[in-house]
Amino acid sequence: MNPLRIFCETSFPAGAKDLLVKGTAGHQLVASLQEADVVFGQPKVDALIAAQNVKWAQLTSAGYTSYDRDDVRAALTARGAALTKSSLVFDEPCAEHVVAFMYAQARQLPAALAEQRGARGWPQKGVRAKSRLLRGQSAVIAGLGSITRRLIELLSPLGMELTVMRRRVSDAGDEPVRAVAWDTPEAGRALGGADHVINNLPESPGTILFFNAARLAAIKPGAIFYNIGRGATVDQPALIAALTSGRLSAAYLDVTTPEPLPPGDPLWTAPNCFITPHTAGGHDDESERLVRHFLENLARFVEGRPLIDRVV
Amino acid sequence: MNPLRIFCETSFPAGAKDLLVKGTAGHQLVASLQEADVVFGQPKVDALIAAQNVKWAQLTSAGYTSYDRDDVRAALTARGAALTKSSLVFDEPCAEHVVAFMYAQARQLPAALAEQRGARGWPQKGVRAKSRLLRGQSAVIAGLGSITRRLIELLSPLGMELTVMRRRVSDAGDEPVRAVAWDTPEAGRALGGADHVINNLPESPGTILFFNAARLAAIKPGAIFYNIGRGATVDQPALIAALTSGRLSAAYLDVTTPEPLPPGDPLWTAPNCFITPHTAGGHDDESERLVRHFLENLARFVEGRPLIDRVV
Repeated sequence: MNPLRIFCETSFPAGAKDLLVKGTAGHQLVASLQEADVVFGQPKVDALIAAQNVKWAQLTSAGYTSYDRDDVRAALTARGAALTKSSLVFDEPCAEHVVAFMYAQARQLPAALAEQRGARGWPQKGVRAKSRLLRGQSAVIAGLGSITRRLIELLSPLGMELTVMRRRVSDAGDEPVRAVAWDTPEAGRALGGADHVINNLPESPGTILFFNAARLAAIKPGAIFYNIGRGATVDQPALIAALTSGRLSAAYLDVTTPEPLPPGDPLWTAPNCFITPHTAGGHDDESERLVRHFLENLARFVEGRPLIDRVV
Repeated sequence: MNPLRIFCETSFPAGAKDLLVKGTAGHQLVASLQEADVVFGQPKVDALIAAQNVKWAQLTSAGYTSYDRDDVRAALTARGAALTKSSLVFDEPCAEHVVAFMYAQARQLPAALAEQRGARGWPQKGVRAKSRLLRGQSAVIAGLGSITRRLIELLSPLGMELTVMRRRVSDAGDEPVRAVAWDTPEAGRALGGADHVINNLPESPGTILFFNAARLAAIKPGAIFYNIGRGATVDQPALIAALTSGRLSAAYLDVTTPEPLPPGDPLWTAPNCFITPHTAGGHDDESERLVRHFLENLARFVEGRPLIDRVV
């Protein structure tokens, strides 16, 4: 294969940039999408459709909502081009983030940290009585992608009863745990029985406001709700109402609508609502891992082997 | 065997008390240690030594520091009596507490929660850059009891490099991970290489101030220190100095000296020091699990089978 013209539109820090330069030696790093065979970053959708030379685009994100369009698929398919994403870089930190949320609530860390910043009493009895063992509890996880699969692995030593809720159950029955289709009575029963409800859904026309008032009302009283999917998949006023009434024990959210969440938004002060600023995918060596993931696919592309994390 | 006279000196809530009453049917619950064959609770040491009828005492704690004395052993052994503890009730919550601490730091939850209570900005970039993947990191765990064994299981999906540091390495080599004796050069190298140093040591003459200034100085710069053992095993001024200088990235402590920690103690405000009020062993069904553990041993005692959690 001739040397490829590669356009990287992401500005990486020095270490990751060095890795990219060394890893693409023998190819040519070019300055614009128009002259590229390969693009790495988050190209504008219209520009990607128009860039006739581009045979492969790798996104630096786990999600690809804005590229999930018929015209993008049609344009890429017509020229035999591929679209890949970087889910495999983010599944580990995102799964670890969910587990961090679950353990923090089980061990009542927010209450203890608030006490440390406040009165500095020693509310040992009260905190102990509110603590829970995760071992043997139950959870429903909405969405079954690589984050959910990794989450199931991380939770495995706890012996939890796990159920995945997805649009359709696989005919092959190859889900790693029990799976239910989300528009079935089984899904309602699963929500009604679980100690933890974890939303890992991406944003798509079929998932907007998925956790609406009715689905939130189907969750077992006292359960805990987590969202590391996308903010748009949750009816926030309904969630605030469920927290205010005490029907849900707590909510842990890494994603909100909008982002950044304005300082005056009532979600910040809803009872037992804990928010991280869309950091679930973050990790200190994120840039280097993104570059390594790209270089793995570059080797595959050059050798004509199947790309990983491919969506088109 | 004749009915046993059982003295329970712990005041359990209704559910656990019912369980105890039903589970001891056929025996006699008595009102004082002096008339008891069996005691369940935390009897005073001198009273236990003097109570000639007591053939078996089960403590409601995981630790037994105050009973770990030659005169107690001699008195119990002389009358063929056994002493058991309740470690098996507390290994799960304590191990889960350590894991909660580790994930909270890795995902920077204290920083996000402080932001939520403060300016409610959206410090996404900064928090992401400080987040770490636990996967593949390394940890040294001081002490190898049932908590450490469970902790190792809970961490297993993370593929961490784990080292146990204990007084003596077993001749049988039956430690679940690599083990080093704590007074060896290997122990120093392990401390110098680990991302996490976890103190699970009980309090005993040999462990008082175990983490002194020298051992804290041997820890890798930037590592995180955890204590769910006993406060007396750590030199707190030296720990505060290591946090103040930034040599340690953070400390997560469930135990301190003294307890309760006075509101003015400098440990509360040491940089990146996070404290829970000795709640690691707590869980909402703690009382019922303590009673079940006692009833398991009661059945064994009656049938002459070996007691579990036995120390004398």
